Amino acid sequence: MSQTGLERLLGHDFTNGQLLTQALTHRSHSARNNERLEFLGDGVLNCIIANQLFQRFSKLPEGDLSRLRAHLVKEPTLCEIAQRLQLGDMLKLGEGELKSGGWRRPSVLADALEAIIGAVFLDAGFIAAEALVVRLYTPLLEAIDPKSIGKDAKSLLQEYLQGRKIALPEYTVTATEGEAHCQLFKVDCTIPKLKLVTHGEGSSRRAAEQQAAERAYQQLTATS
Amino acid sequence: MSQTGLERLLGHDFTNGQLLTQALTHRSHSARNNERLEFLGDGVLNCIIANQLFQRFSKLPEGDLSRLRAHLVKEPTLCEIAQRLQLGDMLKLGEGELKSGGWRRPSVLADALEAIIGAVFLDAGFIAAEALVVRLYTPLLEAIDPKSIGKDAKSLLQEYLQGRKIALPEYTVTATEGEAHCQLFKVDCTIPKLKLVTHGEGSSRRAAEQQAAERAYQQLTATS
Repeated sequence: MSQTGLERLLGHDFTNGQLLTQALTHRSHSARNNERLEFLGDGVLNCIIANQLFQRFSKLPEGDLSRLRAHLVKEPTLCEIAQRLQLGDMLKLGEGELKSGGWRRPSVLADALEAIIGAVFLDAGFIAAEALVVRLYTPLLEAIDPKSIGKDAKSLLQEYLQGRKIALPEYTVTATEGEAHCQLFKVDCTIPKLKLVTHGEGSSRRAAEQQAAERAYQQLTATS
Repeated sequence: MSQTGLERLLGHDFTNGQLLTQALTHRSHSARNNERLEFLGDGVLNCIIANQLFQRFSKLPEGDLSRLRAHLVKEPTLCEIAQRLQLGDMLKLGEGELKSGGWRRPSVLADALEAIIGAVFLDAGFIAAEALVVRLYTPLLEAIDPKSIGKDAKSLLQEYLQGRKIALPEYTVTATEGEAHCQLFKVDCTIPKLKLVTHGEGSSRRAAEQQAAERAYQQLTATS
């Protein structure tokens, strides 16, 4: 894809195309990279998302708004949007990063997306950046269920069980595999009273527990 | 001071004065309070400060910009500005908060200032909010020494000593007083080669060490 193609996807025609080039440049590639733009874009994105949530959910208390915002600006969400835009193909990376697959690393993709938001802000101001963020986030904003999103699976599962006076689940590590720098944890989530056992895996104990909890929660809410 | 007086100090004339009233209303006073505005204002402030720093310090790397921003938006800084505006006198608090001196609590003052920034954003848009933040922050932005601010005293002291090839300071807890929920730690910071010992106190070991380090750093930089 060309930069013009990306501009079309973004819905923003850069007056200063250099800004977009810089936003796509990883620090491994050159000194004129996207780190400062990412800093700016992060602030711009947070502000715009805060305003969107404030306007859309006029009854929601501050704590819930914060929770929703955290969900919308966290790395996996940014990475998902970056993948939709196929940003990975457009990144300028140093040779080492290129070989190690830096173009598909979530942090690299998320940073580039934030940098693009910063670049649009510099190129055309707040209103243009807002229009971009709204375009990118509309599907996510419309899909929000303010009650559940942002809460982690373990909390959701716990609330579900407490509401039904069922004893809380037990999490057990069943295996850890791999070397120290890239371990894989396997965890079982057991709810004795419901005779339910689900399994989760992840690069940390916490991540594995979350996955196991999510599977349990999905099974319970699908059948209830 | 009247609301009009405050508007004059802020340099913003509200079209919808209700927004300012709400920004000054603590949750202890009524349901229509400033909590949601504070959420919005926090995002708006972060974004504007990020942009100001980005523009003013065109060579500063992302990490330093983040550090400076954190310093400028943290509670004590917000509280200082709120005091300059005498916001405490204008707050609407519930009776309990009023009696317990809520109008001088740093978190209450800082939240109200963020809520005012959110209120101006809603009243007149991003450019008006930016103008307000720039007015409030100009003295602080101009006083920034990007090399030192935001760095903690222990780091500054360490860098100072390393630059002169002097062995690093030793921190020793000399006493802990008080009960578990409000302990006081006393710490000595010793730099043997310079025969310098300074003393610090705080509600945590870390805080006491910082104070001791700050005093050592001040003594060294005042005499060097």
